[in-house]
Amino acid sequence: MDATALIAIDWGTTSARAYRQNASGRIVGERSAHLGIAQIRDGQFSSALATLLDDWAKDPAPRLACGMIGSRQGWAEAPYRECPVALDALAAGLTEVTGGRLAIVPGVTCLDSAAVPDVMRGEETQILGATLGVKRADATPYLVVLPGTHSKWAIVGDGRIEAFATYLTGELFAVLKEHSVLGRMMAATPAPRAASTQAFTRGVERGVAAKGKPASLLHDIFGARTLALFRELSETTTADYLSGLLIGSEIREGVAWASGRGVSADRVVLIGAPALVERYTVACALAGVVTVAGPADAAARGLWWIARHAGLVT
Amino acid sequence: MDATALIAIDWGTTSARAYRQNASGRIVGERSAHLGIAQIRDGQFSSALATLLDDWAKDPAPRLACGMIGSRQGWAEAPYRECPVALDALAAGLTEVTGGRLAIVPGVTCLDSAAVPDVMRGEETQILGATLGVKRADATPYLVVLPGTHSKWAIVGDGRIEAFATYLTGELFAVLKEHSVLGRMMAATPAPRAASTQAFTRGVERGVAAKGKPASLLHDIFGARTLALFRELSETTTADYLSGLLIGSEIREGVAWASGRGVSADRVVLIGAPALVERYTVACALAGVVTVAGPADAAARGLWWIARHAGLVT
Repeated sequence: MDATALIAIDWGTTSARAYRQNASGRIVGERSAHLGIAQIRDGQFSSALATLLDDWAKDPAPRLACGMIGSRQGWAEAPYRECPVALDALAAGLTEVTGGRLAIVPGVTCLDSAAVPDVMRGEETQILGATLGVKRADATPYLVVLPGTHSKWAIVGDGRIEAFATYLTGELFAVLKEHSVLGRMMAATPAPRAASTQAFTRGVERGVAAKGKPASLLHDIFGARTLALFRELSETTTADYLSGLLIGSEIREGVAWASGRGVSADRVVLIGAPALVERYTVACALAGVVTVAGPADAAARGLWWIARHAGLVT
Repeated sequence: MDATALIAIDWGTTSARAYRQNASGRIVGERSAHLGIAQIRDGQFSSALATLLDDWAKDPAPRLACGMIGSRQGWAEAPYRECPVALDALAAGLTEVTGGRLAIVPGVTCLDSAAVPDVMRGEETQILGATLGVKRADATPYLVVLPGTHSKWAIVGDGRIEAFATYLTGELFAVLKEHSVLGRMMAATPAPRAASTQAFTRGVERGVAAKGKPASLLHDIFGARTLALFRELSETTTADYLSGLLIGSEIREGVAWASGRGVSADRVVLIGAPALVERYTVACALAGVVTVAGPADAAARGLWWIARHAGLVT
C-alpha cells in the first residue's frame, strides 16, 4: 500500500468526500459519506470525520479540507479572502481546527456592481485544481463555470480569481419542481431522449433570449405552465423545458456579467459532475459559448497544491 | 331586503367569493368560502356552490362566475378568447354549466414575443370592472396591473385588452421563503416597520436595477442570502428584501414589456387586495412609475356589466 502524503477532504453542505493521496499527489483511495454540515447535529464534526475516514483515521498523514466545513455553521470559520485573490494566498490563509488535526481552506468573497456581497467555499479550491494545468495562448482572463445548486461564474487570470458571481439556478429548479404549480404538471417518469432534448433546447433558447425576444425570467417561468396547458409540452418534458430555461437564463446573465468586466465567453472551463457538465455543454453550445470540461477531480488537485504550498506536504 | 338581480361569483383556485347585487348593481350581500377549485374533490362543484351560497341557493336570480372555475380543471371549460379582445366580446362568450344554472365568463389568451402562450381567467373581468369608469384625457392605451401569485400586466385601450403578460412573482416568493436556503434565514416574526421598509426599499431598488447596475435575477436572489450572511439583513428583514427584489424585478420586466409595445408606464391602474396594492404602489413609486388604485370590488363590477350585456339581467 502506497504511503499516504495527504488526506484531502471536499466537505460540503450535503456530503463529504475524502481522498488519500500518495507522495506524488496521485489519488490512491477515495471514500464519501452523506455527512455534509447540514446532516451533522450539535457540532459532532469530530465523530463525523472519524466515520468518513474509517480506518484512515489512524493514518498520521496531514488532513486538509475545503468547502462549507469552513463556514460559520461548520467546524471552524475560515475567514474569507477578498477578490481579487491570488490562488497562492489560499495556501497562506489556512485555519486550524482546535484539537482536530484538520486545516481548512479559506472561502472567497467579492462585491457585485450593487455592492451586494457574494461568497464561495470549496469552489476556489476546484478552480485552482482545474486551472493549474491549463495552458492558454495568451494571458487574457477567462471564465470558469461551476454549475450546481448555487452555480459560480468566476473570472480567472494570472493565477488569481479576479471576481465571481453566484446564480441560484439549481436550487430554483428544485423548489419550482417540488413545490410550485409547475411541478404539478410534471410526471416522475422521464421523457424519451429525443423529446427531452427538444424541450430542453426550447427552454435554453428562451432563456438565452434571441434578439427581438427579450428575456423576462419571472414571465418566462410562467411559460412552462402555459406551454403544458396548451400541450406544447407534456408531463414528461415540462421539467426539461424549465431546466433549459433556467440554465439558458444563467448563461445569458453570466455572459453579460463577464462582458461588463471586459471578459468574453470563449473557451469557458466547466467543472462539475459529468451529467451536469454535459447539460451545460449542450446549453452553452446553443448560446454560442464554447466550453472545455475541467478535470473531475478538481477539488483533490486543488487541495494537493494548497497542501504543498502551505508546507503540509513536502 | 333588496330583491336580487344577480349573484356574481369570483371563483378562483384557492377561494370563492359571491356577491348579491340589486337591480342597480349595488352589492347588498357578500360571502366567501375556502372552496377554490383546488379544494373541490371529484367534481363536487354543485355542492360547493350550494355551500358557498347557503340560503341564497334558493334565490331564483341568475348566476354568473369568472375565474378558474372556467378552466379545464373547473366545472366547465369556458374557451379562451384571443387578444386583442374587445371587452364586449366577453359578454358574448359565456359558457353555461350543464344543469347547473351558472354561466361562466371566458378566459383570455395571447402569445408573447417568443410565441409562448399566456392565459388569464378572472382578471379580464376585474380589468373590465376597474376600467369602466376610468376617464382618460386621451385614447392612448394604458397599463392595468393585477399583483398576486401570478401577477398580470395588461395593456388596455379603446375598450379592449390589447395584450398581457404574467409574472410568477407571488408564487416564486412563497416557494423561496418556504422551501429554499433563503427561508432558513427568515424569522417568523415581522421586523419593526422602519427596518422592514428599509429592506423592502433596498430590494426594490436592486430589482429595478439602476443604470450601471444591471439586473441579474438568478444572481440577485442569492444576494438575499449573502446580505443576511454579512448581517446587512436580519432574520426579520430578509423576507422584506426578497419581496422587494421580486416586485422590483417584475416592475422592471413589465415596464420593458409595455415599452416594447409602445406603451409607457404612466398612470398605471393597480387592482388587488389593499395590502398588496399598497406594496406595489410603494415599489412603483421607487421605480418612477405613477399608479392609481382601482376599485376593490372590480370583479363584482365586471360581472355586473357582463351580465347586463349578455341579457342575464335587464
